[in-house]
Amino acid sequence: MRMVDLIAKKRDGQSLTNEEIQFIMNGYTNGDIPDYQMSAWAMAVFFRGMTEEETAALTLAMVHSGETIDLSKIEGIKVDKHSTGGVGDTTTLVLGPLVASVGVPVAKMSGRGLGHTGGTIDKLESVPGFHVEINNDQFIELVNQNKIAVIGQTGNLTPADKKLYALRDVTATVNSIPLIASSIMSKKIAAGADAIVLDVKTGAGAFMKDLEDARALAEAMVEIGKRVGRKTMAIISDMSQPLGYAIGNALEVKEAIDTLKGEGPEDLQELCLVLGSHMVYLAEKAASLEEARAMLEKAMQDGSALNTFKKFLAAQGGDVSVIDDPSKLPQAKYQIELIAQEDGYVTEIVADAVGTAAMLLGAGRATKESSIDLAVGLVLRKKIGDAVHKGESLVTIYSNSEQVDEVKNMLYENIKITPEPVQAPTLIYDKIL
Amino acid sequence: MRMVDLIAKKRDGQSLTNEEIQFIMNGYTNGDIPDYQMSAWAMAVFFRGMTEEETAALTLAMVHSGETIDLSKIEGIKVDKHSTGGVGDTTTLVLGPLVASVGVPVAKMSGRGLGHTGGTIDKLESVPGFHVEINNDQFIELVNQNKIAVIGQTGNLTPADKKLYALRDVTATVNSIPLIASSIMSKKIAAGADAIVLDVKTGAGAFMKDLEDARALAEAMVEIGKRVGRKTMAIISDMSQPLGYAIGNALEVKEAIDTLKGEGPEDLQELCLVLGSHMVYLAEKAASLEEARAMLEKAMQDGSALNTFKKFLAAQGGDVSVIDDPSKLPQAKYQIELIAQEDGYVTEIVADAVGTAAMLLGAGRATKESSIDLAVGLVLRKKIGDAVHKGESLVTIYSNSEQVDEVKNMLYENIKITPEPVQAPTLIYDKIL
Repeated sequence: MRMVDLIAKKRDGQSLTNEEIQFIMNGYTNGDIPDYQMSAWAMAVFFRGMTEEETAALTLAMVHSGETIDLSKIEGIKVDKHSTGGVGDTTTLVLGPLVASVGVPVAKMSGRGLGHTGGTIDKLESVPGFHVEINNDQFIELVNQNKIAVIGQTGNLTPADKKLYALRDVTATVNSIPLIASSIMSKKIAAGADAIVLDVKTGAGAFMKDLEDARALAEAMVEIGKRVGRKTMAIISDMSQPLGYAIGNALEVKEAIDTLKGEGPEDLQELCLVLGSHMVYLAEKAASLEEARAMLEKAMQDGSALNTFKKFLAAQGGDVSVIDDPSKLPQAKYQIELIAQEDGYVTEIVADAVGTAAMLLGAGRATKESSIDLAVGLVLRKKIGDAVHKGESLVTIYSNSEQVDEVKNMLYENIKITPEPVQAPTLIYDKIL
Repeated sequence: MRMVDLIAKKRDGQSLTNEEIQFIMNGYTNGDIPDYQMSAWAMAVFFRGMTEEETAALTLAMVHSGETIDLSKIEGIKVDKHSTGGVGDTTTLVLGPLVASVGVPVAKMSGRGLGHTGGTIDKLESVPGFHVEINNDQFIELVNQNKIAVIGQTGNLTPADKKLYALRDVTATVNSIPLIASSIMSKKIAAGADAIVLDVKTGAGAFMKDLEDARALAEAMVEIGKRVGRKTMAIISDMSQPLGYAIGNALEVKEAIDTLKGEGPEDLQELCLVLGSHMVYLAEKAASLEEARAMLEKAMQDGSALNTFKKFLAAQGGDVSVIDDPSKLPQAKYQIELIAQEDGYVTEIVADAVGTAAMLLGAGRATKESSIDLAVGLVLRKKIGDAVHKGESLVTIYSNSEQVDEVKNMLYENIKITPEPVQAPTLIYDKIL
């Protein structure tokens, strides 16, 4: 088998066999196939696509390119959730304790990452004392005990995907549905998920700007799940504006606490209930999505969701008194209001730009070496569709510097107000089961 | 400017500017742009194509990536010929002396190369004593004196093209009309051609199997010529079977001698007269193609074409007595006839396979290190459309080994005979002026 022939085969619109895809991914991982052949192949895939069979084969080839996490010692069906990313997405912080509180085991491997805010671990570190430096045995024991634990990235998972993703990033071949779908699914499968719930974002602040693209990606991932024996469901949700109100690390922890009590922002709470009920259903803790949702609503109301969050934080060294008194979370020195300069209705909140404003305040890392400020960020006071009066606050800026003119200008430019009433956007566009 | 953005631009079907194409080729030549970005770009070009303007810009960027040959000290308009390659193509050996004999300066830079037979220099070295080890000044002086000289490849011409071609070869991106067209034209322009005549082959033995592809390539090259100020004309000629009769080094020299006397194979002679008259016309030695053709026919008949060949060989050390007595050329030990096993008509002579048979005998190099046997090769006794009687010879095999079973089998398999009469193929399909 020669890579040049396999590139030509894909270029000419033919399907590659399972063996051919394994040959490509093995060869690429071990260095027999050079980057320049792989990037030509990826560009051919961009134009020709892949069949469902090819995409599933690619996913498994990436899973088998490295280590996989064995979660078999954890009782129950391990359901993982993945979001394609957006701005102010606090769902992971909420969903873990929420579904754990009704008995779904949550064995979360998480990272720090680059972006508008830190990753899940950074956010949780807003809770004084909380740490993820536990070993695998402790991790598994904690999940069995509390139904939830979080550990940092361990092991050399999906090296083929890491190498290919880095190459795609510099060769304009990121934007291919089968390549995106197999990359996401391979990571979830290697991390030990038995079942997967996907939250595919669409809208101006999402990677998939377009509903049709988001649907195609969701369908591709659900199909991979079916073919590789992992029950998979997907939600397509709105990211035309940031989700919830808070964008920042400690600010999102505070928002997660509110949401676990059933007092969070309406859109965040609804999305958590929808995603959560799919997780509960796939974990076979409920016989229907309706039953699952009722269990989660009850867990919010009777305090068991919040209680699970406390137990989880305490087990990993966290000072849980912050849950009852969130003022103990890192606090920014200044709270500066962004005042509306006219009457009207909010018609647009450009999520990307708002996220960048939060990063400018110090909430996120621009490079791996950057440090982040857990206290700072933004809390939206208005969302799309809301009426606004001149002089009201649109956003509260939490900053450790008084000088926030650049952030203010960026926010004014990206929060649009019109005289005519505007409809709030749909939150959930579709479900792919 | 970032290469990843230029790849994306081409991927999305947009045109690149002159500056962008220069940035790509400069960066690739000096190593700033890595192979993996270049191959992704080449695959995007495969799918999206290039405009005429982009293709011309690419050609000039490749010309300017290295040295160029200055032929300004040679009197007259320097017309170069390029053939896209085939089997038994003796045209270069014939055309040089033929057009030189009517006053067109032929300053030929040539190579050895891989393939079914050697390159032009290998073939000419069948003439005892002939050599191309002359310096640039001698070369120019000889062209001014005899109107023809041949020199080996000198200088670092079109390094961008060399590097890109090697990359395309291993990334399944060879087969792109704008990339092929710019590659060919850049080499001719860098080698100092004022005007260019192209012989684009089509048919089973050619790179362009398909007439439409051949026409597209010819049109792309003629368009480049127009845009960069080099008068360019193209012929689309048949390569469904080998051209002429001889495939081999000394055997092709003998065939060239016959053709220069007007006694060569009909197809070879006709193609040389057509290509030659275009060269004479572009060199402004005749006012029309008809006048040019008449001049060349006269040069064949009155001995001046052959005489120019002799003068040229002698000036570069060749023993010209071989011209009058071709038995002094290297002779193979064995002449073995391939006997027809049935009556009928020749309907197919698979040019590629016949070429490979010649290479098996030792006529060509499989790798750069192979040595070649100037004496061996094949001479076809029948061509497509010819009637054949059982027992007649189809091919004479010139070999230095008695053991030619493999060659015979290959020839029998690839020379097809049917009971029904067959038409000889068209020789010249089209002219692009």
